[in-house]
Amino acid sequence: MGIKVAKAFKAETIHMGRLEKGADIIQSLERFCAENNIRAAWVNVIGALDRGTISYYDQREKKYHHHPLAGEYEIVSCSGNISLKDGKPFAHLHIVLSDTDYQTWGGHLWPGTVSVFAAEFVLFELVGADPAAVLARCEDVETGLALW
Amino acid sequence: MGIKVAKAFKAETIHMGRLEKGADIIQSLERFCAENNIRAAWVNVIGALDRGTISYYDQREKKYHHHPLAGEYEIVSCSGNISLKDGKPFAHLHIVLSDTDYQTWGGHLWPGTVSVFAAEFVLFELVGADPAAVLARCEDVETGLALW
Amino acid sequence: MGIKVAKAFKAETIHMGRLEKGADIIQSLERFCAENNIRAAWVNVIGALDRGTISYYDQREKKYHHHPLAGEYEIVSCSGNISLKDGKPFAHLHIVLSDTDYQTWGGHLWPGTVSVFAAEFVLFELVGADPAAVLARCEDVETGLALW
Repeated sequence: MGIKVAKAFKAETIHMGRLEKGADIIQSLERFCAENNIRAAWVNVIGALDRGTISYYDQREKKYHHHPLAGEYEIVSCSGNISLKDGKPFAHLHIVLSDTDYQTWGGHLWPGTVSVFAAEFVLFELVGADPAAVLARCEDVETGLALW
Repeated sequence: MGIKVAKAFKAETIHMGRLEKGADIIQSLERFCAENNIRAAWVNVIGALDRGTISYYDQREKKYHHHPLAGEYEIVSCSGNISLKDGKPFAHLHIVLSDTDYQTWGGHLWPGTVSVFAAEFVLFELVGADPAAVLARCEDVETGLALW
Repeated sequence: MGIKVAKAFKAETIHMGRLEKGADIIQSLERFCAENNIRAAWVNVIGALDRGTISYYDQREKKYHHHPLAGEYEIVSCSGNISLKDGKPFAHLHIVLSDTDYQTWGGHLWPGTVSVFAAEFVLFELVGADPAAVLARCEDVETGLALW
């Protein structure tokens, strides 16, 4: 048991910047990748949140449970990757949020999660070291997830 | 709505190492960047904490609320960036800490937060892909924050 | 006070992929590094957990306290490094987990922690910018830890 899939990449370009206020984190990053022909990346975001949805994957029922968020949260950690799904850039991000009591909450990040004030990102654009270095998500019957 | 600012960089050099016991995390990283002419970077730290301050930004009052920390905490996540503010390297880091009950706490990291034992960092030094690839923080009237 | 040790590296190759279901996170990454002659790296993992152990280092007693985990957890953050210990690749990772109430838990990650479904990793392979750029862990009498 060990590594199932591993592809070798080069970090061609590192994009660092910030989202607009009110921008959807996942949609903004996916659109940025589509516009810049980025097919693989590793992403990290810090900032603050206005509203959104976090979820966890129910391992027995094989479905996501969702939790809506509203109010003031700092994005204290948000990391994940960009790869291809149905031929288009797809973001898979997990997030940790802190509230006004400094308590933290976390889960799988869902579209509709919107930054407030500053959400600063770094995106390591990954270019295949060889033509086979493409990571594409396909439905996995056993887990019910779209996996590499 | 989407990306407000994005600059393209190359990851010239990756610095990996550890802080001295008792070192101020933010000040140590900022001084390291100043001494090595690093104007942009992405940073990640794991380790343990002796004392410090985490905070959140009150989105209505437009000011930070601070929470002092003392005691035993693991730094389970700490990530963010280095960019220029008033011409000098400035660290913007968010942190997640775990306590002796494995509960976690998080927020914006403040100077005066001091490592104990091992605080191990990686710092991806980013060099502009073009001369315009500088990220400098300026006061933003609408948010009250220093943004790119 | 500041930086105790810092070595300069290049990010030669970035490996992105996923672990097999039921794979031990730490052992899988260490074996992957051993097989690919990787002596230094920075690692990030997101995914879900089946069972495992997190711990904190008791700063007075100089020993780890362990907490066993079983059940459904998302790996919302997991980051750290690979360096040499006794001449072999050794992973030092800290983790943040979220449960089915979206509450989070964290600590130092221990071998025996096993992924379920998808655990996706990125591993930045670091090659020394000069021959002295090796990070090797040695026993540190003062802290009782194996430090660089």
